[in-house]
Amino acid sequence: MKLYFSPFSPFARKCLVCAYELGLRDRVEAVVAAAHPVNRDRALIAFNPLGKVPTLVTEKGVSLYDSRVICEYLNDLGGGRLIPGSPDRWVALVEQALADGLMDAAVLTRYEMAVRPEALRWSDWTAGQLDKVTCAMAELESRASSFKNRVDIGTITIGCALGYLDFRFESLGWREKYPAVAAWFNIFAARESMMATRPAA
Amino acid sequence: MKLYFSPFSPFARKCLVCAYELGLRDRVEAVVAAAHPVNRDRALIAFNPLGKVPTLVTEKGVSLYDSRVICEYLNDLGGGRLIPGSPDRWVALVEQALADGLMDAAVLTRYEMAVRPEALRWSDWTAGQLDKVTCAMAELESRASSFKNRVDIGTITIGCALGYLDFRFESLGWREKYPAVAAWFNIFAARESMMATRPAA
Repeated sequence: MKLYFSPFSPFARKCLVCAYELGLRDRVEAVVAAAHPVNRDRALIAFNPLGKVPTLVTEKGVSLYDSRVICEYLNDLGGGRLIPGSPDRWVALVEQALADGLMDAAVLTRYEMAVRPEALRWSDWTAGQLDKVTCAMAELESRASSFKNRVDIGTITIGCALGYLDFRFESLGWREKYPAVAAWFNIFAARESMMATRPAA
Repeated sequence: MKLYFSPFSPFARKCLVCAYELGLRDRVEAVVAAAHPVNRDRALIAFNPLGKVPTLVTEKGVSLYDSRVICEYLNDLGGGRLIPGSPDRWVALVEQALADGLMDAAVLTRYEMAVRPEALRWSDWTAGQLDKVTCAMAELESRASSFKNRVDIGTITIGCALGYLDFRFESLGWREKYPAVAAWFNIFAARESMMATRPAA
């Protein structure tokens, strides 16, 4: 399988972490793509018309996207339990959606502050997106006591979201405001799957 | 159950269409929320920290989001077949991701053109998002011969994406460029579930 990815994308990282946790990392060839919302990557569009990473091309040549679909496919292929059955399923899937939403808001903030020409930036937009991050972090803090030793699509996505904040939004200083999340992440971030996929500095 | 929604959101429409198709519409109370990316809806944030529609609050008071999670929950509750098993599963899930991505790009374009102050708009951003729509439509055209009478999470999401283009992007004139999709949508859009959920003009 080929996984088109970017070392900076938290959504691509989710897929790689799942591959590690499922023992499938050796079967996934990670290929760096030049996905960009304005300068669209025509080579990537051949596999995924949205031109986004992550995109997986299976051993049979079938294109799969987006990260949720790829993670579910890998879980199925590896006979894993990263996506639990009911009733734990809804907890894990909502936590994935929460962390995906946090990452979406953080990535849109990044586009506003680093891609858009400075004269065209809108501070109200950035404030709205960062408020999503703040509210999502408060929700994670209230849930953190339930994370314990869980390794599933919920906690993996949360880990990738926190890693993205560390990488792009260090100035938010989230660890001081959300100590229960920080205590959990100290342990989770030390997993081999997380260490091996940290965004390049 | 309460579904917090907006009559203009194609993601909320997906959930309502699924509820109709599953025979669950009578059990879902649709509540209009004031979700907005800048003027965030605090009442909605109490149920979903991302402040987005759709958000479902189950009969047991559990919040579920986003649209993919809600549709899967409704399908489970209704004992439905909107999310097929392997191998059809991957086709339906990729088509859902493709149509969700098309809707994301269209909604971001709408924010750029109707929410952001005129002086701060960036034409390259809009062009990049609309290119996603164009490439996704070309992919749908190539797949349209396989849609037939399928009613699943793939075709439902595609239907909602096309409905959103009709509602907000009529000037794109998509029917002339993608005749196979148009022929399929003529029939699909006449379903009761689609007719009852058309965006308010």
